[in-house]
Amino acid sequence: MTSWRDYETVNCPVAGAMAIIGVKWSLLILRDLFGGLRRFDDLQAHLGAPRALLSKRLRKLEEAGIVSRVAYRDPGERTRFEYRLTDRGADLRPILIALKEWGDLHVNEPGQEPTELVDKQTGQRVRLALVRDGDGAAVDVRDLRMVPGPGAIKRRTVS
Amino acid sequence: MTSWRDYETVNCPVAGAMAIIGVKWSLLILRDLFGGLRRFDDLQAHLGAPRALLSKRLRKLEEAGIVSRVAYRDPGERTRFEYRLTDRGADLRPILIALKEWGDLHVNEPGQEPTELVDKQTGQRVRLALVRDGDGAAVDVRDLRMVPGPGAIKRRTVS
Repeated sequence: MTSWRDYETVNCPVAGAMAIIGVKWSLLILRDLFGGLRRFDDLQAHLGAPRALLSKRLRKLEEAGIVSRVAYRDPGERTRFEYRLTDRGADLRPILIALKEWGDLHVNEPGQEPTELVDKQTGQRVRLALVRDGDGAAVDVRDLRMVPGPGAIKRRTVS
Repeated sequence: MTSWRDYETVNCPVAGAMAIIGVKWSLLILRDLFGGLRRFDDLQAHLGAPRALLSKRLRKLEEAGIVSRVAYRDPGERTRFEYRLTDRGADLRPILIALKEWGDLHVNEPGQEPTELVDKQTGQRVRLALVRDGDGAAVDVRDLRMVPGPGAIKRRTVS
């Protein structure tokens, strides 16, 4: 039986995603953007990051197509910039939620969550779940199997 | 109205989770452990990581309670070790899946997934979904709101 081990990892999406966002400050910037912050000064004040570092990480996120920089101007002030998540950036949300859920469970204590995600219509708590693609039925993590996909690249046998 | 911004980030679960697993090699080791690899030599061969680096990262994961080291001995060989995910480690799976899903969509091209996650009972594809905690109903990401939780720590006003 072919196994995932027989295929290349050069196109591994986990490694690819980590190469782009796997830097602590990038993820914390994203956390704050998801929380609704947009302006450099607001991000800087909330994160407490050195300005040069924040600036560099925002530029990297912009180059990666995750945020876009939009000019704004308050009356009597010079032009400044705010940062908005692109669609590609907005799709990162489940990663942040998965990190939050694990941290809530295993870094903090259950019942000590600093924030909660709720459905703004009903106020009910929202969480990530594993579901079957077709019918949305819940799947137990023990029933998962990883199989080669359409883009699997066979490894050359090393002799 | 109180906002999440009025609270401390010292207990942020995202930052807490990243501090433990937010290193590229750690996450790739976890990816391979979820894929079923356990032995140091198998991990080393699949990851192509320098032995000293792999050893160090495995030790960190063990110290963090994410993997446990179990001795084994093949006939005629010296005692070696394999690494198994603890329960705390197994709970990291959604983070890996969220990274995979984003990478499949935005690093690779759709239709070029190197691996797929399927339900081993039915072979159907499995994905992460946002659901309401009580009834499992799907929630749109635009309907999410982040609110202070039971462990929120009010920030001191800086005057």
